[in-house]
Amino acid sequence: MKILGIDPGTQITGFGVIETKCFPCFTSDKSKMPKVIDFGCIITESDSPAGERLKKIHDEINKLIDKHKPDLISVESIYFFKNLKTAMPVSQAKGVILLTAAKKKVPVLEFTPLQMKMAIAGYGRAEKKQVQKMIKELLDLSSFDLKEKNRKKDDAADALGIAMCAALKSFGRLSS
Amino acid sequence: MKILGIDPGTQITGFGVIETKCFPCFTSDKSKMPKVIDFGCIITESDSPAGERLKKIHDEINKLIDKHKPDLISVESIYFFKNLKTAMPVSQAKGVILLTAAKKKVPVLEFTPLQMKMAIAGYGRAEKKQVQKMIKELLDLSSFDLKEKNRKKDDAADALGIAMCAALKSFGRLSS
Repeated sequence: MKILGIDPGTQITGFGVIETKCFPCFTSDKSKMPKVIDFGCIITESDSPAGERLKKIHDEINKLIDKHKPDLISVESIYFFKNLKTAMPVSQAKGVILLTAAKKKVPVLEFTPLQMKMAIAGYGRAEKKQVQKMIKELLDLSSFDLKEKNRKKDDAADALGIAMCAALKSFGRLSS
Repeated sequence: MKILGIDPGTQITGFGVIETKCFPCFTSDKSKMPKVIDFGCIITESDSPAGERLKKIHDEINKLIDKHKPDLISVESIYFFKNLKTAMPVSQAKGVILLTAAKKKVPVLEFTPLQMKMAIAGYGRAEKKQVQKMIKELLDLSSFDLKEKNRKKDDAADALGIAMCAALKSFGRLSS
């Protein structure tokens, strides 16, 4: 099963594609972990109009779906924001992602940051940086150039974590 | 100039299309007011998945753009919400509308409810219902069946008001 994980944002939308054949085990044996197919970030220009930035996200997600043909899309859903100014652009990007998935008829699962922290670190209050570090250690990213511009960002690690949540859930190990 | 006004929402998205050849005058002489071409609501089923609801909004706005070929799209922008549960679905719908406009290359203007109240009623704290009543009185809606299901909602009146804001702005009578 191929899963496309997405961490939505107007400026940076992280994505990660994983493939899993069996129930993922969180051990040091990386062969038992899902295989990472692709990951990175869709970055939009802050001086572009909102519609153009959303169009870039839509176009890039469309390309990722066409290229990887995921069975499932897993999206990060935030229900608590420090302020509305963040909530609105993130929700706009999420709306565009849900639309893109619906147009391509790919089913969507949603997970909160708390669920991801529980799934990856086993602890809902784990630090964001710590969880990102764990994701990078758990998954085999050795075949990727981590210095490449759009792979450096932590949003890509978040997206891989969100994809992992869907992998765990589809094997019945994570309640939504 | 043809303007498509939109009041975004996941459940009800109001729309109104007006045509204006000269600077709109707010008098009892309806011939000096913009001509109403179409108005109504896009209603989505609350038990449908979010992606399907957003797809319906996208498809219907696409049809309206194809049918009326607006020179401008005017969207209501809310920056204050009573709670995040309302802000997120409204922002998702707005994101989809901005994307749809960008894909069709139609320029977008945004106006707040305060700007609309100022433009229509001349008073920013005017009651929502009062403004909707004024819009219905100012514009000639006599050729439309107001009992038709998707024309009854006040969201359609709001959308016509938002379109009026763009008409006033494009004639230099409203600052953004």
